[in-house]
Amino acid sequence: MTISMYQASTPRFANLLRNLSALIEKADAHCAAKKIDPAAITAFRLYPDMYPFTRQVQIACDTAKAAVARLAGVEVPKHEDVEQTFAELKSRIAKTLDFIESIRPERIDGSEEKEIVLAMRSGERRFKGLQYLMGQAYPNFYFHVTTAYNILRHNGVEIGKADFIGKP
Amino acid sequence: MTISMYQASTPRFANLLRNLSALIEKADAHCAAKKIDPAAITAFRLYPDMYPFTRQVQIACDTAKAAVARLAGVEVPKHEDVEQTFAELKSRIAKTLDFIESIRPERIDGSEEKEIVLAMRSGERRFKGLQYLMGQAYPNFYFHVTTAYNILRHNGVEIGKADFIGKP
Repeated sequence: MTISMYQASTPRFANLLRNLSALIEKADAHCAAKKIDPAAITAFRLYPDMYPFTRQVQIACDTAKAAVARLAGVEVPKHEDVEQTFAELKSRIAKTLDFIESIRPERIDGSEEKEIVLAMRSGERRFKGLQYLMGQAYPNFYFHVTTAYNILRHNGVEIGKADFIGKP
Repeated sequence: MTISMYQASTPRFANLLRNLSALIEKADAHCAAKKIDPAAITAFRLYPDMYPFTRQVQIACDTAKAAVARLAGVEVPKHEDVEQTFAELKSRIAKTLDFIESIRPERIDGSEEKEIVLAMRSGERRFKGLQYLMGQAYPNFYFHVTTAYNILRHNGVEIGKADFIGKP
């Protein structure tokens, strides 16, 4: 009895992406209730050279999308980074969910040792599938979802860790 | 070819905990170089009702420690939450690493379906081992490591995502 690469990828990304979408809904409702310009949050950065909220959500989506595509050996779909509003960010997440959930488990299972090549700023890096998923994609994905959460929390949106974790 | 519960737990927690320790070293050096009182960072919260940096590190440690212990079916060791300084937080991480790396892989492997019972504020919750690890322990762990990172970054410590991810 062991874990399959599918179990460790798509459902995990999908779960957190749905939670992120629900967090965005709460942020949207918060802005409406308090008469706050949503751009005060969507453009907010925790430090001047960090990415704003919009980009945190986009990268979280891209990390999930790319991990599933690379493990399955299909082309990573290109989603343009044009989102500005909460509604647009929710659509970006929905589009990402549509893609990752369209890839059948059989395409991903068995990719533990598959060679994954990433073009990074520091040059080309090679991973085995499992090392890529757990050592690169996971921390990167959770990093951006959590930073998006922290931006909302820092700006007073009433959310808690239970919203982040959702239904395990 | 599949993933073992050991591969998915101890080495993953250990990797990020070592990265967190290195981040704390950088924060310590930053405070020394800029003549900043380290307490300005260790006690810092991203929002008044969020946990301070010290507690973020403690909970990250506790999540890793408890996950490994529960999956292995051994008692969760109790570590008192007394850390105040960067050096003490690094010791807490080292103590956590000592514990999780003392549990042999055979104790953890095969725990995918093991019943895990958590006493939560909302009452008792039952999980299967895999669901607990990937749906509860992972997001909780990454949440606190990332929030610790964000507190440092928000306070101007010069670190980047490569420090967070480390060597996959």
